[in-house]
Amino acid sequence: MKKYNNGSFRAKDIGKQVTLYGWVNKKRNMGGMIFVDLRDKSGLIQLVFNKDTLKTDFNEAEKLHSEYCIKVKGIILARSDINSKIPTGEIEVIVSELEILSECELLPFNIYEENETNEHTTLKYRYLELRRERLANIIRTRAKIMTSIREYLNNKEFCEIETPILCKSTPEGARDYIVPSRIQKGSFYALPQSPQIFKQLLMLGGFERYYQIAKCFRDEDLRADRQPEFTQIDIEMSFVEEIDVRNMAEELIKKLMKDIKNIDIPKIPVITYKDAIENYGSDKPDTRFDMMLLDFTEILKNSEMILFKNIIENNGIIKGIIVKNSGYSRNDIDKLTEYTKVYGAKGLAWLKYNDNTFSGSIAKNLESNIAENIKSTYSLSDGDIILLVADETKTVHTSLGALRLKIAENLNIIDKNKFNFLWVVDFPMFEYSKTDKRWKSTHHPFTKPKNIEDIKDPENCLSDAYDMVLNGYEIGGGSIRIHDSKVQEKVFEALNISKEESRLRFGFFVDAFKYGAPPHGGLAFGLDRLVMLLCNTDNIKDVIAFPKTQSASDLMSEAPSEVSTIQLDELGIAIKGGENFWVNSTKN
Amino acid sequence: MKKYNNGSFRAKDIGKQVTLYGWVNKKRNMGGMIFVDLRDKSGLIQLVFNKDTLKTDFNEAEKLHSEYCIKVKGIILARSDINSKIPTGEIEVIVSELEILSECELLPFNIYEENETNEHTTLKYRYLELRRERLANIIRTRAKIMTSIREYLNNKEFCEIETPILCKSTPEGARDYIVPSRIQKGSFYALPQSPQIFKQLLMLGGFERYYQIAKCFRDEDLRADRQPEFTQIDIEMSFVEEIDVRNMAEELIKKLMKDIKNIDIPKIPVITYKDAIENYGSDKPDTRFDMMLLDFTEILKNSEMILFKNIIENNGIIKGIIVKNSGYSRNDIDKLTEYTKVYGAKGLAWLKYNDNTFSGSIAKNLESNIAENIKSTYSLSDGDIILLVADETKTVHTSLGALRLKIAENLNIIDKNKFNFLWVVDFPMFEYSKTDKRWKSTHHPFTKPKNIEDIKDPENCLSDAYDMVLNGYEIGGGSIRIHDSKVQEKVFEALNISKEESRLRFGFFVDAFKYGAPPHGGLAFGLDRLVMLLCNTDNIKDVIAFPKTQSASDLMSEAPSEVSTIQLDELGIAIKGGENFWVNSTKN
Repeated sequence: MKKYNNGSFRAKDIGKQVTLYGWVNKKRNMGGMIFVDLRDKSGLIQLVFNKDTLKTDFNEAEKLHSEYCIKVKGIILARSDINSKIPTGEIEVIVSELEILSECELLPFNIYEENETNEHTTLKYRYLELRRERLANIIRTRAKIMTSIREYLNNKEFCEIETPILCKSTPEGARDYIVPSRIQKGSFYALPQSPQIFKQLLMLGGFERYYQIAKCFRDEDLRADRQPEFTQIDIEMSFVEEIDVRNMAEELIKKLMKDIKNIDIPKIPVITYKDAIENYGSDKPDTRFDMMLLDFTEILKNSEMILFKNIIENNGIIKGIIVKNSGYSRNDIDKLTEYTKVYGAKGLAWLKYNDNTFSGSIAKNLESNIAENIKSTYSLSDGDIILLVADETKTVHTSLGALRLKIAENLNIIDKNKFNFLWVVDFPMFEYSKTDKRWKSTHHPFTKPKNIEDIKDPENCLSDAYDMVLNGYEIGGGSIRIHDSKVQEKVFEALNISKEESRLRFGFFVDAFKYGAPPHGGLAFGLDRLVMLLCNTDNIKDVIAFPKTQSASDLMSEAPSEVSTIQLDELGIAIKGGENFWVNSTKN
Repeated sequence: MKKYNNGSFRAKDIGKQVTLYGWVNKKRNMGGMIFVDLRDKSGLIQLVFNKDTLKTDFNEAEKLHSEYCIKVKGIILARSDINSKIPTGEIEVIVSELEILSECELLPFNIYEENETNEHTTLKYRYLELRRERLANIIRTRAKIMTSIREYLNNKEFCEIETPILCKSTPEGARDYIVPSRIQKGSFYALPQSPQIFKQLLMLGGFERYYQIAKCFRDEDLRADRQPEFTQIDIEMSFVEEIDVRNMAEELIKKLMKDIKNIDIPKIPVITYKDAIENYGSDKPDTRFDMMLLDFTEILKNSEMILFKNIIENNGIIKGIIVKNSGYSRNDIDKLTEYTKVYGAKGLAWLKYNDNTFSGSIAKNLESNIAENIKSTYSLSDGDIILLVADETKTVHTSLGALRLKIAENLNIIDKNKFNFLWVVDFPMFEYSKTDKRWKSTHHPFTKPKNIEDIKDPENCLSDAYDMVLNGYEIGGGSIRIHDSKVQEKVFEALNISKEESRLRFGFFVDAFKYGAPPHGGLAFGLDRLVMLLCNTDNIKDVIAFPKTQSASDLMSEAPSEVSTIQLDELGIAIKGGENFWVNSTKN
């Protein structure tokens, strides 16, 4: 058995006889001497094959090539030319015996150049890509993150419980992956979008504290940071209020940041959903930089400019951000204008401050008293640019929120070493769906309203829901759940769900609350996102050992793939338009 | 937030003011005094509601019923009538304030009577069944087992890596659950039967040590101890030989038994597959009792009895077991005969020893010299019964192996407190399939043969495969894998798999071994089975929070279920004979 981590040897080991295993990372042939960097999971060590001292056939050493897997015996000696780039750089192994364990054909891509990223090739040979240090380190860090989290939760008496993968399909939410049942033909299981129902039932079952690092599935069109299967750190507690769940989650994150990054994070600030939207134009603000949204409605309400007059008359608002030290040209601002249009804004009004005067798109028409008012309200510096959006409230917030992030990225003002956590609380209970012309749950219909009386005013009704945000990404979220059947009924009413419909859709789950349901709540962290942020990558494929492409394919194993007619027949299903579809259908 | 575990209070806590939460386990109304056993995850504590000292409405206390969920404030006092049956029996809580958190309707079954086991009802209300102490304890022990195993593996530098659930369907092995792809219509994912391929690829990827507590799936007709989804502790290591993997697994089990049962298990004995079959008639012997299979072929080969003569002439064998202290009647033996017939034996020949003479089915025709030989070979005691099966080798072993277990159970000679572990090694590389008239892999075609030369003699070729057995159950198994493409080719040849076929069936996986594959091997433990054995239950449903029935249904959530036509349309599939099948098919 392999006893040593190659990367762990130091000068103190000089003189040791060792048997090492690993892969040839690099080979230099200097005639009678061959140098090999031997790699294993722990790092590199230099091997020296000397024609005079190697007891086995020197030709074998000459045969060595990149990624050959070998076993060597030798002695650790001091190195004359110290390599300070690697931890084992003070030593080398003079090899006495070499055994080639297996050879390596021509590699399909250069695994030593991290920049080589023909994704089709690297994913097809994922097992080779995983030999890259950066990727392997991320996968290892992912394991450490799981261990750290489990340690915390086990210590706090949370019980790890596995919930089913073969579940019931629910019509709400994202699209389910479904699995045909062979025994009950015509019926299907669904893969869980989350263990939500089960974790609440475990509270009803009296477990009080549950967690699971759970696989979840959504058959949605994939974006760059989405995978069809993802992992959730799923947590639920009984006999708690919102603050208890948040305190628990915060402690967990504190321990995690200490364990993984050796960072002591301060108490996580709390912001309401309303403040987050108004100040950052986002319910997941990146607080690593300021450039907050400023309300210019009051200042501009008396302007005669048609643009502003119209908006204000139609209950719209005018907000803006002040960009400092940008050096933006008119052309740059035009590009930003196009960018905000993607988010529904009709355009950007802008002012540039220099030598106590404004230039810019609205400078000419801006009334001088209003200009003075702006100057005195915001102590402007030369070069400051004010970017304004006037529109209905939601559009103003969304577009300025996006613009704020875009500019920060563009001007490179974000400190990448910062980890800014944030709680967003007091989420609205309902949101109005223009498509369906009715109020829908912001989270899910089992989320507890802050005050049951407010339910009559759905627009202003808040819920006991909360998100944890890190550097502008939602990394976790949860809520206190309704445990009182009467409150649940009222929420269904507010959602315009009849008793019959609620029975049909949520049947057994609603029934369960009749049998002494404890107050409970919880949250879930997205593990993949968390690993991404802690490992400083924006590619979700980096944090998953065997990821899928945006068309949900595994290029390595070539899944999904065709299955046999026999398999389909056994399941009582057929492919529409497929070869065996017609044949079978005529049999009926 | 709930601060206390109700079951943790003792006499030392007398005088404490506490706020407790939990469920009413039992209530006794004594007029002005009401006693309630309050239950939480930790146990019971007695509450006293006294009309004189309760500050809240006493009527509320009178309303209390089984499984009401409540919150109380009160003081811990000494109890006059000590209840030695429960750990908190010396104390009680005099309640000053009561809040009913939620009421409980009439329970659908008596959750306090463990014997009530109308499975349909208890599974439908699984969340109520989970309130039973026995079941909850098993689920909690399962979590402890997972924690103990992870601790061991993390300490030994195994890296926990998640492998995909949406995989490629493989034609070999058990039946796959398949998942239709929406993006690639007509194609399907398969749920993994095990992470075998992925864990080997992780070794090729250089991780050296991998583990995962992995969900696996098999769409097979379910037996009592099978579930469609099950959990496997999946382990793989590079640069190891068989003994290294076994030593690791043995250490892991030693730690587990210490952590969970506080038992120090001795070095696990090793038996070859051949010896296991010959001595116990099983490749997973229960060694908690002897009653081993004895070979009577030599002794009986000169008998003139037609039965034996025929068998011996046809290369069959005669084996038997000696049953002691059974008190079996002729009728009992007839029943055992019927039992062995299920396993293919044509019958049981038997001898009963008493006062130095034999009675029984073959006593009359047994030649006296042979009878004397039997007596002198096996030092028999009065009442001993010899049960013999004469048949072809396999039938003799199978039927006597089953008979041995049946009798042990029947005579209750197994010490239920024993945990007898056993390694079974040297499994045959191939087994002959009479159906397919060809040699097949006993494990899988990637298992390493002990000696590649032996491959020419498939009947006698052994593999580097091993099983761990506990009390007659296989709890784990694994092998050293082939890492040399040339050896793999030879194995495919022996299995009559052509190059084209191996490419088609194992394609990318075989390719992967061209790029410096390390020698590797591993094993997997069946977690569900392990929990069953450690928790002393023979019902697999006891070890799974939300299990399925033998028809693979979840009676609680009613999965599988019908899905909408829209869902099926999006996936491009139809149900054969289903309503929308014809309609859609005519469209093509």
